[in-house]
Amino acid sequence: ISWAKFARLNNFYIWLFLAAVGLLGSIYLVAVDLIFKYVVFSWREAFMSLTENYFLQYLSFIAWTVALATGSCFIIKKICPAAVGSGIPDLKSIFSGFWNPFVVAPMVLLWKTIGLLLSYGSGLSIGKEGPYIHISATLANTLLSIKPFKSIAQNDTQRSQLLAACCALGVAATFGSPIGGVLFSIEATGTFYLISNYWRAFFTATVGAVGIKILLSNPSNDLLESFRTHFADLNLASAQLIAFIILGVLCGLLASLFISLYTKIYNWKKHNAELFKKITPFGEVIIVAAATAILSFPLKFLRLDHATAVHTMFTATPDSDNSEVLSELAVWTDSMPFNHGIILACFLYVVVKLVLTAVSITLPIPYGIYIPLFAIGSAVGRFVGELMLVLFPNSKEIYPTGYAVVGAAALCGGATRTVSSAMIILELTNDLTYMVPVLLGVVLSCGIGNLLNHSIYDCFLKNKNLPYLPFYKAKSDSLIARDVMKRDLYYVCQNTTLSQISNLLKRVDEHSIPVVSSDNDLQLIGTISTTTLEEVIAYHERLHSYSKSPLSLS
Amino acid sequence: ISWAKFARLNNFYIWLFLAAVGLLGSIYLVAVDLIFKYVVFSWREAFMSLTENYFLQYLSFIAWTVALATGSCFIIKKICPAAVGSGIPDLKSIFSGFWNPFVVAPMVLLWKTIGLLLSYGSGLSIGKEGPYIHISATLANTLLSIKPFKSIAQNDTQRSQLLAACCALGVAATFGSPIGGVLFSIEATGTFYLISNYWRAFFTATVGAVGIKILLSNPSNDLLESFRTHFADLNLASAQLIAFIILGVLCGLLASLFISLYTKIYNWKKHNAELFKKITPFGEVIIVAAATAILSFPLKFLRLDHATAVHTMFTATPDSDNSEVLSELAVWTDSMPFNHGIILACFLYVVVKLVLTAVSITLPIPYGIYIPLFAIGSAVGRFVGELMLVLFPNSKEIYPTGYAVVGAAALCGGATRTVSSAMIILELTNDLTYMVPVLLGVVLSCGIGNLLNHSIYDCFLKNKNLPYLPFYKAKSDSLIARDVMKRDLYYVCQNTTLSQISNLLKRVDEHSIPVVSSDNDLQLIGTISTTTLEEVIAYHERLHSYSKSPLSLS
Repeated sequence: ISWAKFARLNNFYIWLFLAAVGLLGSIYLVAVDLIFKYVVFSWREAFMSLTENYFLQYLSFIAWTVALATGSCFIIKKICPAAVGSGIPDLKSIFSGFWNPFVVAPMVLLWKTIGLLLSYGSGLSIGKEGPYIHISATLANTLLSIKPFKSIAQNDTQRSQLLAACCALGVAATFGSPIGGVLFSIEATGTFYLISNYWRAFFTATVGAVGIKILLSNPSNDLLESFRTHFADLNLASAQLIAFIILGVLCGLLASLFISLYTKIYNWKKHNAELFKKITPFGEVIIVAAATAILSFPLKFLRLDHATAVHTMFTATPDSDNSEVLSELAVWTDSMPFNHGIILACFLYVVVKLVLTAVSITLPIPYGIYIPLFAIGSAVGRFVGELMLVLFPNSKEIYPTGYAVVGAAALCGGATRTVSSAMIILELTNDLTYMVPVLLGVVLSCGIGNLLNHSIYDCFLKNKNLPYLPFYKAKSDSLIARDVMKRDLYYVCQNTTLSQISNLLKRVDEHSIPVVSSDNDLQLIGTISTTTLEEVIAYHERLHSYSKSPLSLS
Repeated sequence: ISWAKFARLNNFYIWLFLAAVGLLGSIYLVAVDLIFKYVVFSWREAFMSLTENYFLQYLSFIAWTVALATGSCFIIKKICPAAVGSGIPDLKSIFSGFWNPFVVAPMVLLWKTIGLLLSYGSGLSIGKEGPYIHISATLANTLLSIKPFKSIAQNDTQRSQLLAACCALGVAATFGSPIGGVLFSIEATGTFYLISNYWRAFFTATVGAVGIKILLSNPSNDLLESFRTHFADLNLASAQLIAFIILGVLCGLLASLFISLYTKIYNWKKHNAELFKKITPFGEVIIVAAATAILSFPLKFLRLDHATAVHTMFTATPDSDNSEVLSELAVWTDSMPFNHGIILACFLYVVVKLVLTAVSITLPIPYGIYIPLFAIGSAVGRFVGELMLVLFPNSKEIYPTGYAVVGAAALCGGATRTVSSAMIILELTNDLTYMVPVLLGVVLSCGIGNLLNHSIYDCFLKNKNLPYLPFYKAKSDSLIARDVMKRDLYYVCQNTTLSQISNLLKRVDEHSIPVVSSDNDLQLIGTISTTTLEEVIAYHERLHSYSKSPLSLS
């Protein structure tokens, strides 16, 4: 088999592989989503409605939360430790060049799914986006170990590139946002990005999006429908511009606060390792789950799942004539004392959820952080929007629901330091009316956040002690050059022609090559890099193409 | 001044610079757009309505086209040759590492604007997106030569990185699509992309988008309003999915055909250089302008400016009760013989415009290719959509206007081989309902195109003989290693410790370093690369962090 034929075949298999991942992944993730809707959450509802008694309901709410969270912890601690947490930091480490097969082993696919069904289903203040991305990458890696795809990932770099392209799928499936998914996979890969991978990511995400669109074409299954907004036109040349700027800055500050809260809790637990050894991971999970349930039950809006909370923040207004919408809004305002009760409710929601989320993501369970931050951010935005309405009661142009959209994007952007959260929320709401304020909020929030601390993913990376390029430190005084140097080396003599060197550099795949005086004494007299070589040849060719006369620089 | 303080100040100036470019650029480009609307095109209308006589109108139409096109050619040939063409290939070459100050000189800013006002205003089948991007980059480069921004671009690489970030602005201004602009700037930069530049591009595009949104907040100035669509929900689980796939493939084939047509015309002109020397560039422009005007005048829909044509394709349906919309549609169907006249009109539009555009972009004038391809693509899509309506006359779910949107994105994507065209059209129409078919169409069209030939930008690059990495060929047999090797070289002895080497590599900014036996004889015995070093140290540190015991590999 010739090289050209092999390359063509390999290329064909790469696209086939990406299509297969897109299709299988979208089916898998939609199936998980439907299990959440029709099994986990509907069972919870059934379990809760066994009794009418308020106190018994309270107890069963606590029991459900504790039981599922403990089950999830059991999977992590006893069966599959690699399924813990978000998965994004582990993937970031892989994409930085530190290949780790345990993170994307086939068994992780199974146990991460089951663990997530339990942890997200328990009602803890966590999300599912990170795990979905992790599941996509694991699915891709599993497919790579089956024929005919075994041949396309000849080394770990190629393999991790292909996995990076498949990450877009996880986002596409959680939020119905293929473009946001591609942008997220660009930001997640580290410091530089290969454009060829951009195409692959787009292809996978598109196939996945087609799959999801077809699978969810039955309206009763459309899990993303509830996030859709239909805003009237926005006039940005008004006081609203300043309000959006304030909202962006506020979200940046809150995101930083959330990250340092998480770091404080994490470090406090580390300092009290003795105590936590006595409690055991299970005790820890039980305490947090019970506390979450106890805190959340009394105020109805605190027990809402994140999707419903976001739905109300994004769409429900008191001047709606839809009774369903009004009853959704009443969940938030009923138990509040003021006229503008929604303002206080949003404030409470933000404070309680921010603390609960920061605590929950230190637990040994599979978790995401995107969706809770999304819900909290929408409440922050709604809070600011409702305040604007109080400040400008006669304005016809202020929609607090629009502020909720901007807040959700800005808080997620600020915590994850990804601009792609803007795109994700625009695709999720299927509405581009607030594009400019959303972008503005995210850019401001990311900027403020970067001034104050590291992103939440970087904190995860640091806490998990994962190798990642920006953290690279040299501490090795025990090794000397001879221990690690390459011995089968290439060099050129000072009389080698450039075209020979160019051919050699292409063949040996080196960035630079040493020059010696002669083959006999090997005395080092210089080095030549590919960059220099390219510059010289390009210069030479340009001169050549202008003057059309032979030229020698020697 | 300390290094840390300098870096902080430098960073501050970079963000200030990007904000300044975003703001000034958006004002400048909106001003140009308003000059088109209120001066160039309204003067043309006034000029045309001087007479009621059909024949005299025909003559004045030809005169207008020829006069402005010739003026534009005069600017390129006699005043500022660097302002020719799209500008994107020249920028691509710069971003590939071949800095060329003439492409982004301040004078280009002025003359490209005036040249574009004349060439785009003449009514030739060309666009303005490429020139807008070129103008943004030139504006950014001009600002970089003024205090306090003089200090932030210390070398050509930094300078071209900053210009790349500012390119997003040109797209944001032409199409109101900041996110599409960022994606386009990623794709335009070549083979790899620095994530740090992604942030800068997003920031510039966002500031620009805020500026544009405020400047165009007066509805009478909203130049992008006419592109907005408001589609009903789309059910993809039907025969429509197959139609969208066919449309994507068709656009890919047409895009390739367009590119080879352009190449054929270009090569034919090159082979007949003697003839074209006799005609002179002015004669050439006059012939093409006259031919365009003569061909376009008789059929009303061929003389429409591209924006109006796209508007009709995207929004006008016969079952509308808006008389303005119906009269717009009548422009297309009136002179057609059939019942479904729009199908024939679209077909004619595609054929005539494809040829005229391929001819026009070989002329020495400033031109873009995006907007004409956009208009042609929308006609291709509408053609397929209307055929679908004939095939399934009873379906309530087929909207030919939706097909027009998909076709426009797919044809642009196929010709430029950029997936960002999907995002650009979604932002332009301000409607995400057709996101999935748009993505599908673009991915398919790009894929088909890549199988058949190079992108139109690559053809421009090749024809302009611009240096660009993928075209790099080594032909230099006249140079030997000694001529180009670095003489002030660094090396290490075999007994140097890794941490010393690590420090050295950081300081000297090299990818790899030769190892010699001793300082005295300099006998080359190996090389060490940063990659190897990092891997070894990371491995060592990981082992160290697991075992917590000292370790030596020696």
